[in-house]
Amino acid sequence: MRDSGDTFHLAIPVYDLAEAVEFYVGRLGCKLARRYPDRITLDFFGDQVVCHLVERPAAAAPPGLYPRHFGVTFRQAADFERLLRLVELRGIPVFGPTSIRFEGLAEEHQTLVLRDPADNLLEFKHYLDPRMMY
Amino acid sequence: MRDSGDTFHLAIPVYDLAEAVEFYVGRLGCKLARRYPDRITLDFFGDQVVCHLVERPAAAAPPGLYPRHFGVTFRQAADFERLLRLVELRGIPVFGPTSIRFEGLAEEHQTLVLRDPADNLLEFKHYLDPRMMY
Amino acid sequence: MRDSGDTFHLAIPVYDLAEAVEFYVGRLGCKLARRYPDRITLDFFGDQVVCHLVERPAAAAPPGLYPRHFGVTFRQAADFERLLRLVELRGIPVFGPTSIRFEGLAEEHQTLVLRDPADNLLEFKHYLDPRMMY
Amino acid sequence: MRDSGDTFHLAIPVYDLAEAVEFYVGRLGCKLARRYPDRITLDFFGDQVVCHLVERPAAAAPPGLYPRHFGVTFRQAADFERLLRLVELRGIPVFGPTSIRFEGLAEEHQTLVLRDPADNLLEFKHYLDPRMMY
Amino acid sequence: MRDSGDTFHLAIPVYDLAEAVEFYVGRLGCKLARRYPDRITLDFFGDQVVCHLVERPAAAAPPGLYPRHFGVTFRQAADFERLLRLVELRGIPVFGPTSIRFEGLAEEHQTLVLRDPADNLLEFKHYLDPRMMY
Amino acid sequence: MRDSGDTFHLAIPVYDLAEAVEFYVGRLGCKLARRYPDRITLDFFGDQVVCHLVERPAAAAPPGLYPRHFGVTFRQAADFERLLRLVELRGIPVFGPTSIRFEGLAEEHQTLVLRDPADNLLEFKHYLDPRMMY
Amino acid sequence: MRDSGDTFHLAIPVYDLAEAVEFYVGRLGCKLARRYPDRITLDFFGDQVVCHLVERPAAAAPPGLYPRHFGVTFRQAADFERLLRLVELRGIPVFGPTSIRFEGLAEEHQTLVLRDPADNLLEFKHYLDPRMMY
Amino acid sequence: MRDSGDTFHLAIPVYDLAEAVEFYVGRLGCKLARRYPDRITLDFFGDQVVCHLVERPAAAAPPGLYPRHFGVTFRQAADFERLLRLVELRGIPVFGPTSIRFEGLAEEHQTLVLRDPADNLLEFKHYLDPRMMY
Repeated sequence: MRDSGDTFHLAIPVYDLAEAVEFYVGRLGCKLARRYPDRITLDFFGDQVVCHLVERPAAAAPPGLYPRHFGVTFRQAADFERLLRLVELRGIPVFGPTSIRFEGLAEEHQTLVLRDPADNLLEFKHYLDPRMMY
Repeated sequence: MRDSGDTFHLAIPVYDLAEAVEFYVGRLGCKLARRYPDRITLDFFGDQVVCHLVERPAAAAPPGLYPRHFGVTFRQAADFERLLRLVELRGIPVFGPTSIRFEGLAEEHQTLVLRDPADNLLEFKHYLDPRMMY
Repeated sequence: MRDSGDTFHLAIPVYDLAEAVEFYVGRLGCKLARRYPDRITLDFFGDQVVCHLVERPAAAAPPGLYPRHFGVTFRQAADFERLLRLVELRGIPVFGPTSIRFEGLAEEHQTLVLRDPADNLLEFKHYLDPRMMY
Repeated sequence: MRDSGDTFHLAIPVYDLAEAVEFYVGRLGCKLARRYPDRITLDFFGDQVVCHLVERPAAAAPPGLYPRHFGVTFRQAADFERLLRLVELRGIPVFGPTSIRFEGLAEEHQTLVLRDPADNLLEFKHYLDPRMMY
Repeated sequence: MRDSGDTFHLAIPVYDLAEAVEFYVGRLGCKLARRYPDRITLDFFGDQVVCHLVERPAAAAPPGLYPRHFGVTFRQAADFERLLRLVELRGIPVFGPTSIRFEGLAEEHQTLVLRDPADNLLEFKHYLDPRMMY
Repeated sequence: MRDSGDTFHLAIPVYDLAEAVEFYVGRLGCKLARRYPDRITLDFFGDQVVCHLVERPAAAAPPGLYPRHFGVTFRQAADFERLLRLVELRGIPVFGPTSIRFEGLAEEHQTLVLRDPADNLLEFKHYLDPRMMY
Repeated sequence: MRDSGDTFHLAIPVYDLAEAVEFYVGRLGCKLARRYPDRITLDFFGDQVVCHLVERPAAAAPPGLYPRHFGVTFRQAADFERLLRLVELRGIPVFGPTSIRFEGLAEEHQTLVLRDPADNLLEFKHYLDPRMMY
Repeated sequence: MRDSGDTFHLAIPVYDLAEAVEFYVGRLGCKLARRYPDRITLDFFGDQVVCHLVERPAAAAPPGLYPRHFGVTFRQAADFERLLRLVELRGIPVFGPTSIRFEGLAEEHQTLVLRDPADNLLEFKHYLDPRMMY
């Protein structure tokens, strides 16, 4: 179990800060903590995500889930389902359908992948057995 | 405050799984949770980091802290200092010297940046004012 | 998640301290912490509400929910329902019917508004999605 | 001790939403949760404060601490002192000097009163004896 | 909510220490912490009860619930029901039938009264509304 | 460690309810939860104490600490010291001087005994070794 | 309730470290914390188990449950059932069938006994009444 | 961090139940939970230790720390020091002197080894860096 007093923090690139606020705060329900000319900091499900402003690349490869993505693994199924409901109600762009991975194995989990406006991929998971969260 | 029952999870590229185990488990004191032919999963300070095996690129740009890095922000200064001690005792590669950022501002924090064998950069922080952790 | 060691505190006007004790302690089930000639302090659902004695105005405007009211947002639906039951059993004055706000949106929540003897309005809420509590 | 899963919520009037964001988020270090045309919602030290947009009155009485104000009572002196430091570093407008109230009595506490751009007064406190927080 | 680090402690008279161990540890499932020639100390549902050895009175009045008794108020109904099951399985002496008190009022609660070998009465309760536990 | 969701509860005799409110709420800083014609209920350091009104006996024996008394064992020395300060500031009647018991043994603890207006004795303790709290 | 900051630790003999890693990490879902030439340390359901390498005895008695075994008592039935599912999905060797012990008594509990490659026996339990966990 | 709701449990052999109660409860300050003709169960620093009665062997090898021992790793140095004080005050038999292991390495820890009347060895530890507790 992680320490509720610490936070994970992750820095990611975005191409437009207003667009990032609209996606992370307006859609995904994160909280805006600080705003600088070149970055915003977010309370992302209780951890810190910092969006750094970078140049939009001339030509980007299509995004892929591997090897880079981030997200939250919920202990409670209800939290995963609430996020599904939020995604539907607010029309948040999904990267492929919600699926079950490692079905029939101990590591079985539901997974939902979202795509932010800068093509960062966010994976949210719920495991049948919480000991498999690591 | 984040929920201690959930976990943040982050997927990163590595070039060699044994090297990753040596760095994250043998040096940094993380715990090895699962091992697959193409990835390992780690209990990284209570959150999940998954190291996906990718081809080592022919020529890589020198690593830079922006826009991508990840780590932990410790609420207690003692936890930051213990990590400094670990880094010294075990000779973990540091990416530039430990420094104080935003000195004299409300956001003032100490920061330590490590470099893993696949050139992922890890930033660990401690803020004078824990409300600035986001 | 808020810190359970701190308390929010709110100071409000009342016109009669005995009336305030009867409403907040005798009806609403708050606890009386301290009593002074010109104020009482309450443990109001775990936070502090201080009722300051003021002159009853000659002519008061009818109370309105905006822009001033206060209350508690319950994480658990059961706590909201227990308050509804208390209100009914003890005949606590309600300001308009219990309703659902932002129905069909992510922010959907149930709301109950009470009216204290000094026309302060108290709003109690329960959100379908606890991340919308802020 | 209050329940860390619930939140207190308070609705207050403001005259300008951007000004309120600047004060509560940019200065006081609160987090912006949601933004509507006529209100913003804040994660205010872990509780919810909603700022409702109202007309700026033609002539307002000078603000007074009684009977209406709100704030946080910190259990730890260090949290009170961190707020003092923030107020100084960021030049947040203070309503009268920091003082000790009920000195030499069991209820002795330090108090700091801030003034937001709509003349709402915020009182932050720390009691020598945490049982007096109510 | 009480502080889980502190303990309530209560000293009561008993007429026979072995009898008290048999009742409190052997039947009621408390834990024996310390044993002295003239007293035993118990971990009684997480709080401390000390049984002091006194002379058995020549003639004792029949025990009554008022004004002296002690016990635990369970937040969860399941804990109350588990105690009922324990009482039945181990044949613990009950002082009158299990009953519902203040039925139909906000203070409604189930109550079970046990009688120890020295005629101390123990009352266990569960309230429909946990805010009525005080 | 006890469950912070449950409460210990204790019923004691008092001879005058107003006198009991004055002692427990006005002096000792407990909170008044409910008031009935024949009893009051208190939030006593997080647990429930119920004061039942009984006839003042014609002639009472002088109060003695054994076999009946009740109180709180504080885990933190600071909480014990804060109570000492409260007792001094508010002139609460003490039953004999503050003392150290079992000095030089593992069970060593500080103890303070108070006397309420109905001659109930309250013992507050702090152990050097918290494992001895039971 | 035990302190979540401490850990129980247990040292046991194993005959082969790789075999122990395969059993405890690969099958049982424990985490590998540290690896030395003569031992491995495990995060075993949140506590520490150290496997010390010893010579495989020429002839070992068949393993028996008494007087030596170790394991976890789960408070929640769901955790016991998740372990049963893991055992089945991953074909972990069971030492006799899952059974109910002390049936019809207060101490009634379900029990599952596993056998590691060095014939250490692991017992996992779930009690109907959590107060019987000790 | 382990789950405070679960318990580790360990079964060990003892040669005399009264002797075991005297050592574990009378000396070490554990709590006696249950007593059967052939075993006792203990609340051992919050976990369960069951002492099973076995025949005292005719000739026992001298006890050794490897590969079998058990104990508690304290997060706080103060808890380790309190145990040292208890051992001294109550003359609990120590197996070799208190020592520092892995000195100058990240795994550095203090260790104290006790010996119960059946020659079970108990190791108590405190690590400079709590992340090394596993």
